[in-house]
Parts: sequence; C-alpha cells; structure tokens
Amino acid sequence: MKGIVLFAHGARDPEWALPFQRIRDGYALAHPERPVALAYLEWMQPELAQAIGDLMGRGATQIVVVPLFMAQGNHLKRDLPLLVEAARQANGGVRVQVLPALGEANDMVKAIVEWIEAVTR
Amino acid sequence: MKGIVLFAHGARDPEWALPFQRIRDGYALAHPERPVALAYLEWMQPELAQAIGDLMGRGATQIVVVPLFMAQGNHLKRDLPLLVEAARQANGGVRVQVLPALGEANDMVKAIVEWIEAVTR
Repeated sequence: MKGIVLFAHGARDPEWALPFQRIRDGYALAHPERPVALAYLEWMQPELAQAIGDLMGRGATQIVVVPLFMAQGNHLKRDLPLLVEAARQANGGVRVQVLPALGEANDMVKAIVEWIEAVTR
Repeated sequence: MKGIVLFAHGARDPEWALPFQRIRDGYALAHPERPVALAYLEWMQPELAQAIGDLMGRGATQIVVVPLFMAQGNHLKRDLPLLVEAARQANGGVRVQVLPALGEANDMVKAIVEWIEAVTR
C-alpha cells in the first residue's frame, strides 16, 4: 500500500503549518484508505524519516513524497535526496518515490494563474 | 490602472525562478492589458521596489502584491510589510494592496488536494 508524505519547508512561526494541515486533511478526507502524513525540512516536526515510519506503522509498504514547494532549488535538489536516503535506511530500505515540486506541474501553474486572475480582478 | 506584483521567495539556484516565470507569462498572456512583474524577497532580482517602479513606468497607478508563497510565516508577516512601506516611499507613495498567500486561499487548497490525488493515483 502507498503512503503519502506531503513534504513542506517549515518555519519558526506555527501558523506556517496551517495550509499544509488543511491540504493533508483534505486529502485524508478524500482518501481515508490511504495513509498520509506531513513532514518538514526544517523548524517543524515530524522530519521525513519519522513521517515515513509513521506511514509504515499504518500499513504503507511504499512511499510517495510530494514536495509542497513552489519551485525546486537546493532544498529539493540537494537536501531532499539525502534525507530520503537516510529515511530509507532508517525504515528498512522501503521504496520511496519523490515527485516533482508543486510549481513544476502544468496543472498547478494553470490553477495558480486562474487564482491570480480571480483575486486581482 | 492596477499593476500586479507576483512576489516570490527567491533562491540561489536560477532554476528556482522557472515556475514563477511561467506563472507570470501565463497571466500576461491572459491579461495583456495589465502590467505584471515578478519580485523576489532574496537572492533574485528585481526586488519589490524596483518591480513596482517598473509597473508604474508601464502605466500602473495602484499595485496589488500577490505572494506566491505556500504559507505565511515571518517573511510575509514581518519582512513584506517593511518592504512594501519602503517600496511605496521609493515610488511616490503609490497605493499598494497585499493579498493573502497562495496557500491561504480555499481555491488553492482545493486545487492542490486535487493535484495530489492525480499524481499519487
């Protein structure tokens, strides 16, 4: 069974997490059968390895990491692969697939443009 | 006439800018009559004051800042208001409206959940 990690940057301000929690809750409501967890690069908990362990405890046998980042820079190109490898080793070598960042997806670019049109009307 | 600033974080990696450039280009294509410009908090150019000056040079008489951030933390709560005030003073006191972050918008949360559903199917 797939487990989904929604991977976000994290920040000192606890309010930073609210949109990510809403996204997680929205996904969980739509897919109650599929384990989903947030993980953060820095400042917030849980970190990636812990989130993956949590998902495996809920029955996940493979992991998909969805980067909730507007774009890819060194955090996704350099930091995330190292975290994924460490998290795999800490979790019995589980298979982990990492998807492109949210802002890289054509559908999201289109949705964002439409949102900008709506809010600047 | 409204001018639109798409305000992003910025990063050392030039590829970071690509999604924001696509979003700007998508908006400009849909609204050729309305000046739009990117601005960055750090690492990338132009900064906010310069982008606002550019928009005013293209006929904008009021400015709407759209934060292309996943969530709001200290960058938007603390840094952006200071940048806006400095940018206003550098540009003749022009009226600047700052919208909530992308991730705060219900429509965007919904679109992101749908995108996650599609890419993790």
